[in-house]
Amino acid sequence: MAADGEFKRDLRYITTRITADGRDGWPVEPGRYRLVIARACPWANRAAIVRRLMGLEDVLSMGVAGPLHDERSWSFDLDPDGRDPVLGIERLQEAFFRRDPEYPRGITVPAIVDIPTGQVVTNDFPRMTLDLGREWAAHQRDGAPDLYPDKLRDEIDDVALKVFHDVNNGVYKCGFARSQDAYEGAYRALWERLDWLEERLRTQRYLVGDTITEADVRLWPTLVRFDAVYHGHFKCNRQKLAEMPALWAYARDLFQTPGFGDTIDFEQTKTHYYGVHRMINPTGIVPSGPDPRGWLTPHGREALGGRPFGDGTAPGPVPEGERVPALG
Amino acid sequence: MAADGEFKRDLRYITTRITADGRDGWPVEPGRYRLVIARACPWANRAAIVRRLMGLEDVLSMGVAGPLHDERSWSFDLDPDGRDPVLGIERLQEAFFRRDPEYPRGITVPAIVDIPTGQVVTNDFPRMTLDLGREWAAHQRDGAPDLYPDKLRDEIDDVALKVFHDVNNGVYKCGFARSQDAYEGAYRALWERLDWLEERLRTQRYLVGDTITEADVRLWPTLVRFDAVYHGHFKCNRQKLAEMPALWAYARDLFQTPGFGDTIDFEQTKTHYYGVHRMINPTGIVPSGPDPRGWLTPHGREALGGRPFGDGTAPGPVPEGERVPALG
Repeated sequence: MAADGEFKRDLRYITTRITADGRDGWPVEPGRYRLVIARACPWANRAAIVRRLMGLEDVLSMGVAGPLHDERSWSFDLDPDGRDPVLGIERLQEAFFRRDPEYPRGITVPAIVDIPTGQVVTNDFPRMTLDLGREWAAHQRDGAPDLYPDKLRDEIDDVALKVFHDVNNGVYKCGFARSQDAYEGAYRALWERLDWLEERLRTQRYLVGDTITEADVRLWPTLVRFDAVYHGHFKCNRQKLAEMPALWAYARDLFQTPGFGDTIDFEQTKTHYYGVHRMINPTGIVPSGPDPRGWLTPHGREALGGRPFGDGTAPGPVPEGERVPALG
Repeated sequence: MAADGEFKRDLRYITTRITADGRDGWPVEPGRYRLVIARACPWANRAAIVRRLMGLEDVLSMGVAGPLHDERSWSFDLDPDGRDPVLGIERLQEAFFRRDPEYPRGITVPAIVDIPTGQVVTNDFPRMTLDLGREWAAHQRDGAPDLYPDKLRDEIDDVALKVFHDVNNGVYKCGFARSQDAYEGAYRALWERLDWLEERLRTQRYLVGDTITEADVRLWPTLVRFDAVYHGHFKCNRQKLAEMPALWAYARDLFQTPGFGDTIDFEQTKTHYYGVHRMINPTGIVPSGPDPRGWLTPHGREALGGRPFGDGTAPGPVPEGERVPALG
């Protein structure tokens, strides 16, 4: 929190990487690592989506922390006995402390844990999805799409950076502002960017090029949470997403694309935001609305063309143990 | 507040009446009384609307308390030197204490104050609008409508009672609930009633009969505040009013009818709710949205027929000193 009441996100993460050549000491290896997410968290959502799109479910297992946490952060309270069945720990904090007993920063998801040592290898979410796309190539499913094509990288990076500051992190800057000025500045930047995105998506199906890319993977987790959480809880209320025709159709299109909507649990998401941020919702009461069934309505975006997976194909069904509840 | 976390409104008011025959000691008399409202308050809004519709502006003056208040409640901080220019007081509390130095209940608007003695005569808002309609008949403008026709009273009373419990007070029961169960019960009752109203208003222009009645005057102040305040701040978020086609068109129709929209100040309204209820909005930050200009869009309700003022006419322009800011 800055002196003027502006929310500043600590962007220092554990940046060691899991790579094909193992240059940081953690080589890609099927069955060796566990991705830890929480359904509520938009940053973790990116990793869950890319893991699905790449078909890495069998080689990189996934643990799911519960929606509520205390000052020691995420815990595995959805699991039997409150322990992650693979890592055997109750709190994600334990894996951070195994990596660094003095770990001084936030205990965040997504995190990838080295199962043999129980240590967090990385919680660097922007790098993580790129590495799941590239470094894990040898273990991806047939038909895994290229989310970060060489010739589009500059444009993807440019769009993603704008979206990060004004939208992904922008909603938090609105919600966690501690002064009216800081809030209004963040609100203006958010809506200018959403207007820009609305305009861009009016004539093209995806954000960059004609296929799903990292740019879409990064924007969408914020959009899917917008009406359920950010509109009310974070005061991002110029309009609902459902009142932005192109953005709403775009977000529904992806929701209905395998690998996106099948990672979403609206109840856990609302329970997290409204239950954890007592400084802005002291009662902890979780709103009953909005009705999420609108996400399943026809979006009409096929008319814009586009090839969702490029030369690849859609991912298969969600593994049994990872299914999210049906809407409504 | 009940033990189960349910919000209970104290409905005991000062029930002496200002009548044509003066039977309670306060006869109708031009220039003798002052109506005190706050732009934020939906209960006071009813009285401001009826005063306009009846054309009582010249015979019953109006004081406007500011949007923020402390534990001593409403104060005249919008006025020069922070004093109501007619009553000469800084706080509405003073007029209640002149009536009863031990006055034990909430200091509420609307209140009608006897100017010579400075005492509150009544803050009984459901009675107040009926009396402005009937008891003040001798001083009403030509063309003042009948908002409570004899032959429709039972139906008006029935609709108004349902609307009071589930909608007018229902939004408060959602927002001030102190348990998830109490909230969810109030939310269900609210949306069942709004669905019932939506259905009713799909085929008729006004709630009862074919003209504006007390039933409309009582529902509308809640609807006009819905998207700006109740949807987010009170967690009444199944949908926005703007997503309920008949209710939204009905509310816009009345907004654009003289005597309704010209009593509304969205900024003061938001400032009040978000600034005063620190137990549900501890930061006091006031959302910038939603964009209120939608209230001015065409509503198409003329197609349903109806005669807004029955055998009467629309009220004239708002007096100079009582104008609210233009939208947007």
